[in-house]
Amino acid sequence: MLLVELIRKKRDSRELTREEIEFIVSGYTSGEFPDYQISAFLMAALIRGLSGAETAALTQAMLHSGQVLDFSDLPGKKVDKHSTGGVGDKTSLVISPVVAAAGGVSVPMISGRGLGHTGGTLDKLEAIPGFNVNLTLAQFRDVLAKIGCAMIGQTAEVAPADKKLYSLRDVTGTVESPFLICASIMSKKLAEGVDGLVLDVKTGSGAFMKSEADAVYLAELMVDTGERMGKKMVALITDMDQPLGNAIGNALEVEECIEMMRGKGAEDLRVLTLELCSWMFYLGERTRTVLEGYHLAEEMITSGKALNKFRELIEIQGGDPQVIDYPSRLPHAMHRVTVHAKAEGFVTAMDCERIGIAGVMLGGGRQKKEDSVDPAVGIVLNRKVGQYVQKNDTLCFVHYNSDANLDEVLGLLQSAYVIGPHLPVEPRPLIHRVIKGKSVV
Amino acid sequence: MLLVELIRKKRDSRELTREEIEFIVSGYTSGEFPDYQISAFLMAALIRGLSGAETAALTQAMLHSGQVLDFSDLPGKKVDKHSTGGVGDKTSLVISPVVAAAGGVSVPMISGRGLGHTGGTLDKLEAIPGFNVNLTLAQFRDVLAKIGCAMIGQTAEVAPADKKLYSLRDVTGTVESPFLICASIMSKKLAEGVDGLVLDVKTGSGAFMKSEADAVYLAELMVDTGERMGKKMVALITDMDQPLGNAIGNALEVEECIEMMRGKGAEDLRVLTLELCSWMFYLGERTRTVLEGYHLAEEMITSGKALNKFRELIEIQGGDPQVIDYPSRLPHAMHRVTVHAKAEGFVTAMDCERIGIAGVMLGGGRQKKEDSVDPAVGIVLNRKVGQYVQKNDTLCFVHYNSDANLDEVLGLLQSAYVIGPHLPVEPRPLIHRVIKGKSVV
Repeated sequence: MLLVELIRKKRDSRELTREEIEFIVSGYTSGEFPDYQISAFLMAALIRGLSGAETAALTQAMLHSGQVLDFSDLPGKKVDKHSTGGVGDKTSLVISPVVAAAGGVSVPMISGRGLGHTGGTLDKLEAIPGFNVNLTLAQFRDVLAKIGCAMIGQTAEVAPADKKLYSLRDVTGTVESPFLICASIMSKKLAEGVDGLVLDVKTGSGAFMKSEADAVYLAELMVDTGERMGKKMVALITDMDQPLGNAIGNALEVEECIEMMRGKGAEDLRVLTLELCSWMFYLGERTRTVLEGYHLAEEMITSGKALNKFRELIEIQGGDPQVIDYPSRLPHAMHRVTVHAKAEGFVTAMDCERIGIAGVMLGGGRQKKEDSVDPAVGIVLNRKVGQYVQKNDTLCFVHYNSDANLDEVLGLLQSAYVIGPHLPVEPRPLIHRVIKGKSVV
Repeated sequence: MLLVELIRKKRDSRELTREEIEFIVSGYTSGEFPDYQISAFLMAALIRGLSGAETAALTQAMLHSGQVLDFSDLPGKKVDKHSTGGVGDKTSLVISPVVAAAGGVSVPMISGRGLGHTGGTLDKLEAIPGFNVNLTLAQFRDVLAKIGCAMIGQTAEVAPADKKLYSLRDVTGTVESPFLICASIMSKKLAEGVDGLVLDVKTGSGAFMKSEADAVYLAELMVDTGERMGKKMVALITDMDQPLGNAIGNALEVEECIEMMRGKGAEDLRVLTLELCSWMFYLGERTRTVLEGYHLAEEMITSGKALNKFRELIEIQGGDPQVIDYPSRLPHAMHRVTVHAKAEGFVTAMDCERIGIAGVMLGGGRQKKEDSVDPAVGIVLNRKVGQYVQKNDTLCFVHYNSDANLDEVLGLLQSAYVIGPHLPVEPRPLIHRVIKGKSVV
């Protein structure tokens, strides 16, 4: 097999076989094939697209470039959730404890860091003093076996092909392909050895997929790919046209999660988290229906079992469990400033990406991969879409440590709120659509 | 300007500006941009295509990556011919002397070597003992000033961007783009400092562009690109569905050229050569009409002036001029074998690429760039399309030095002849079409 012939094949819109795709991925991972040939292949794949079989073969080849975890000796099904990323999207921190607290199903979760205007689960967890996301795979298994959930970052053993390919895509204009995105996400998630996977595919101004059609396309692709690999799959297309919940910023979001597990907090965050948990229970065969799963998730909250499981998780991964009862032990920013409404009317829309960027500019996210994040800073929303504001009402609070670009942040936030005399006739739903795999009834 | 943004722009089918294309080419030539980014760009350019303005900008940027010759101080117009490559295509060796012999116009010709199943002018010239194609640019100018023609290979000073880009295209599946082919050819040819250029774009089973539509597309692109750069341009779409003339093989082709300049030889070779010369005379303003140019070219042959000019050229570039009167001084293969017809009928077609490959397998061409060629070996056709053969008639002769893969060569040649009971109703013309630049009336 000649690599250049395979590049030409894809370039000419012909379908590659499983063997040909494995040849490309394994040769690249081993260092045999140079970057310049693979980047030409990636561009051809981006423009020509991949078939379902090609996408699954690429995912599988990337998955098997590294270690694939096997938790089949642990009792019960293993399930996980993956979100394509958004602003204020903190559901993972609640989902793991809720699902694990119910018993009979466990959650081995490997997460990522924030990138661009979006936050990342690892950064949020690290806002808890002492919390260690860098467990070895052996420690990961131990924690999972003991408490039913464990939360870590990607290790070098997991899908090394993805790591190499992602770096190359980043500098060659080959990021924005649903096929390559699918293979990247799914190769990492399926390395977790789960039986079922719930996807939270965001759409709206704060999502990577701004249009619903793009989000649905990616969701269907991921569901199909997971199914071809024998996994139970469901994808929820959910709204990211405004931040989820009220807090944006790592420690602020941990605090909001704790509040939620106490039965308080924002309705959108609560509903979406419960929906995602209910599907995880259902795919993990913990409940017979999704509705039953919803009630079970609610019960884990009201009974305090989820909060206890979170406490357990923090403790076993080296964090300070007292943050749960004393949130003041979380990092706090030195200063707080208020953003006021300049006009009276309804909040008709929010530019969610702009709010995410404001958070990054405060130091709460990364502009480059190498940047470190300030866990304390962030934004707390006081008004969201649909609410009425008087002039000078508080729109949101900004928690900051440095006023280096504070004016720009305040301007961004001010401009992110669209205030008008009438509400839109059709408000956007929280859950736009549910896409189920064929094996999911 | 960020290179990755320009890659994304081309990827998304948006047009790049002249400045953006110059940025890419100069950054790559200087070594600033890595191969892996440029190969992604080349793949995007191949699939998305380039506009006329983009193609001209790319050609210009590649042209100006090196030295651009200027012969405006020499009297008369400078013209050249370029062929996209074929089998038995030896017209350059006759054209240079014919045009130079007429005086008042000169031919600074930079040629290439054979690649794939096609032959190359430099390899043919080097079959003449002592002939030196590696002149410096200063020597090139001297020879041109003295005798009105000079024939050399590409030097490191000419279009270095093309050399670098071509090597990358070769291994990344980005060769087959009319836009990139056009920029590659034209950047080298325009570095010759010519006022007019005649293109011989081949089509048929022995051409790189098998379909006439592809040949016409490339021809129009090159004519348009040359015109945008102020050159007089004409392209002839000519037949390469069977070899041109009878000889295939370097020394054998030199011998055929000498014969032709003596007024003998194959009709197709004679007609095409005269046509190409007539257009060069016309573009070079040496004659007022193309027809007048045709008669002038004929006269250069019948008067013996062309052969004398060829003798002069060989001598001044270090070759043995006695080969003209004693072709036995050219290299000859040790053995000759005959390929016989297995059936009676008309030669209705020839697989021209197969005949080219047979020549390469004998050692007369290159399978890889680094290969050396055997000047002596080759094939002499005894029958061509349209002729009637009896069973056991001689189809062609094979001149060889090694019988390593002789059986395969003979099989290839046998199978390249298609013999049937009837001739095709519409025989292919030698010159399919003439495409003139707007400035050429």
